[in-house]
Amino acid sequence: MNIIDIITKKKNNEVLTDEEIKFVITNYLNDNIKDYQMSSLLMAIVLNGMNEYEIDSLTKYMLESGDRIDLSPLGTKVADKHSTGGVGDKTTLIVSPLVASCGVKVAKMSGHGLGHTGGTIDKLEAIPGFNTNLSEEEFLNQVKNIGLSIITSSKNLVPADKKIYALRDVTGTVESPALIASSIMSKKIASGSHNLVLDIKVGSGALIKDLKTAEELANIMIKIGKKNNMNIICLLTNMDIPLGNNIGNILEVEEAIAILTNKKDGPLQKLCITIATYMVSLGLNISYEEAEKQVLDNLKTGKAYTKFLEFIKAQHGDLSKMVKNAQVYQVKTNKQGYLTNIDAYKLGRLSMELGAGRENKEDTIDYSAGIIVNKKINDYLNVGDVVYTIYTNKDINNLNFDIFTLSNEPINAPQLIHEIIK
Amino acid sequence: MNIIDIITKKKNNEVLTDEEIKFVITNYLNDNIKDYQMSSLLMAIVLNGMNEYEIDSLTKYMLESGDRIDLSPLGTKVADKHSTGGVGDKTTLIVSPLVASCGVKVAKMSGHGLGHTGGTIDKLEAIPGFNTNLSEEEFLNQVKNIGLSIITSSKNLVPADKKIYALRDVTGTVESPALIASSIMSKKIASGSHNLVLDIKVGSGALIKDLKTAEELANIMIKIGKKNNMNIICLLTNMDIPLGNNIGNILEVEEAIAILTNKKDGPLQKLCITIATYMVSLGLNISYEEAEKQVLDNLKTGKAYTKFLEFIKAQHGDLSKMVKNAQVYQVKTNKQGYLTNIDAYKLGRLSMELGAGRENKEDTIDYSAGIIVNKKINDYLNVGDVVYTIYTNKDINNLNFDIFTLSNEPINAPQLIHEIIK
Repeated sequence: MNIIDIITKKKNNEVLTDEEIKFVITNYLNDNIKDYQMSSLLMAIVLNGMNEYEIDSLTKYMLESGDRIDLSPLGTKVADKHSTGGVGDKTTLIVSPLVASCGVKVAKMSGHGLGHTGGTIDKLEAIPGFNTNLSEEEFLNQVKNIGLSIITSSKNLVPADKKIYALRDVTGTVESPALIASSIMSKKIASGSHNLVLDIKVGSGALIKDLKTAEELANIMIKIGKKNNMNIICLLTNMDIPLGNNIGNILEVEEAIAILTNKKDGPLQKLCITIATYMVSLGLNISYEEAEKQVLDNLKTGKAYTKFLEFIKAQHGDLSKMVKNAQVYQVKTNKQGYLTNIDAYKLGRLSMELGAGRENKEDTIDYSAGIIVNKKINDYLNVGDVVYTIYTNKDINNLNFDIFTLSNEPINAPQLIHEIIK
Repeated sequence: MNIIDIITKKKNNEVLTDEEIKFVITNYLNDNIKDYQMSSLLMAIVLNGMNEYEIDSLTKYMLESGDRIDLSPLGTKVADKHSTGGVGDKTTLIVSPLVASCGVKVAKMSGHGLGHTGGTIDKLEAIPGFNTNLSEEEFLNQVKNIGLSIITSSKNLVPADKKIYALRDVTGTVESPALIASSIMSKKIASGSHNLVLDIKVGSGALIKDLKTAEELANIMIKIGKKNNMNIICLLTNMDIPLGNNIGNILEVEEAIAILTNKKDGPLQKLCITIATYMVSLGLNISYEEAEKQVLDNLKTGKAYTKFLEFIKAQHGDLSKMVKNAQVYQVKTNKQGYLTNIDAYKLGRLSMELGAGRENKEDTIDYSAGIIVNKKINDYLNVGDVVYTIYTNKDINNLNFDIFTLSNEPINAPQLIHEIIK
């Protein structure tokens, strides 16, 4: 068996055997297969796809490449969520304490952001003192005690995925249902999830640009989940426009707090309630309606916010020490009309360039950098109105601010949740 | 402009601009684009193809990456040939002195073999003392004096192709008309060719497996040639079965001498006469019939062989010192029937494993190793007949000898020349 024959098979649109996929994962991890060979194979997979059995094998050998975490000591009232990544997506910060306040434990491993999408770990690390590197024992103890912990995943949790993901990110081979599904599901199985709500982002600011591919991805992940005794609910949600108004780490923590303290509503709040409701329904094995009642109660009465503060304190974060030391610039329109589009992808890229994200892994983040979108879709703008506000310590002279579209007529409001697949 | 956007465009089957292709070649050569990014792009090109303008740009920037050789001091009576590579293809050794003996100069740069196909330079280096590394001045002087020289191409002749070709070889991205055409044509333009006969090998033992792709490749190369003031004739020839009987370096030199001394005829001789005739016709600007008469005369009267000996001597080769020190094994059949197939690819692989070729660039060649096929298509074999003879210093116990097919009925003789495209 050799890698060139395997690449050639996939190039010719043939099906790889279980043994061939094992050979690829094992030999890539021990460096017998080189990055340049793996990236060629990855592009062939992106373009020619993989069938259900190939994706199962890929998931299995990724999973076998590292350790697995056993969450059974936490009992059955446990649920997890995962978002495929978007711009301004701070739902984990809101949903996790909301769900935990309803008696469903959340033991969550999360990642840093890369490219134009943010990561939950970066947002938490924007809170001075917050420790995302707990030991497995500390992590499980905290979940037992307060019902919630979010940490960065250990180096040995699906190391094959870590290595392959880093390569995909720099070789234009991210957007493949087979690769995305096996990457997410191997991590979720390894980190002990049994009840999982998947938020598949669709649109210009997401990895998945169209609904058809998102449906395909959802069905693949649900199938893998079933084979691994997981209950999965997939939400296909809009990422043509950013989620909420704030993009950037401290700014997103602030927006999460605004939702948790009932100072803000809108699509972000609505999506958080939906995700939390499905998690509580799965975790407590109750109907959607019963779960929704609890979720709405706990949000309204402040129990969710109390849990949030408890969680931040347990991991040594100090919200009072967050400092927004960035320069503030207002971006005004020189036209007039209805605001009919805010390009999530461009906004994500701009936010990254302002210092809120990393282009390369070694880049450092400016936690205070980011963007607040001051208007919403179908607002009527006059010349001189502020459309968004920029926070940065960088030179903004060469940046591209061509992000929003004005039209003579308002549009139908974009749908927040396209579809729910169980 | 960045490489990930360019990879993504080609992944989405979009057309790359001239500037983007320039960016890729320039930045790959100076290591700003990494091997793993280039291989991902190459696979996207293999699967989604390139249009005529993209191939023109690719050829142009490959060409601009290095030096060009000016053959104009040699006058107009000059011709070149190129084979896309096959098993047992020693035509250059025969055709070059045959053409030179007819008064058409041959100033040829050639390459080492890699994988299952052999290279002219390896065959020449099998002759003790033969120097393939002449300076450009020595090279041109020899062509002026005796009408013929064959050397290895200098490091600075299309360095972009050298780097890309080495990567394609280990990433399963060899078989692409766009990449093959730009690779061959950039080298041919850089080495000063104006009259060129291209032998495009088609079949199991070749890079191109089917006639349709071969025709596509021929038409692309003829178009590029026309734009660069070249006269090109493409022969599409059979490589399902090996060319001639001998495979391996010294064995192929011996078979070339057998043809040049009129001790052997058959398909190899016929193809050499055809290629030589087209080269002489182009080089002297005479009809095919006139050229063929000269070629046949010079072969029959030994003028071609005299030129071969002159050429070997000029580059300090000593044919009397070639030593065949390999062990000899006869492979006999245990069945009976008509010999209806000899798998050129498997034979090429076996020959490589016997020591006649390189799997990796750093491997050394055993010049005495190889295979002589003792039977030809449609010979009737009885149990115990010798089908081929193996020459090697390696352990042959684990090798696969399942190379020929016996049938109850003879087949239609395979066509040697499928098509000629001008």
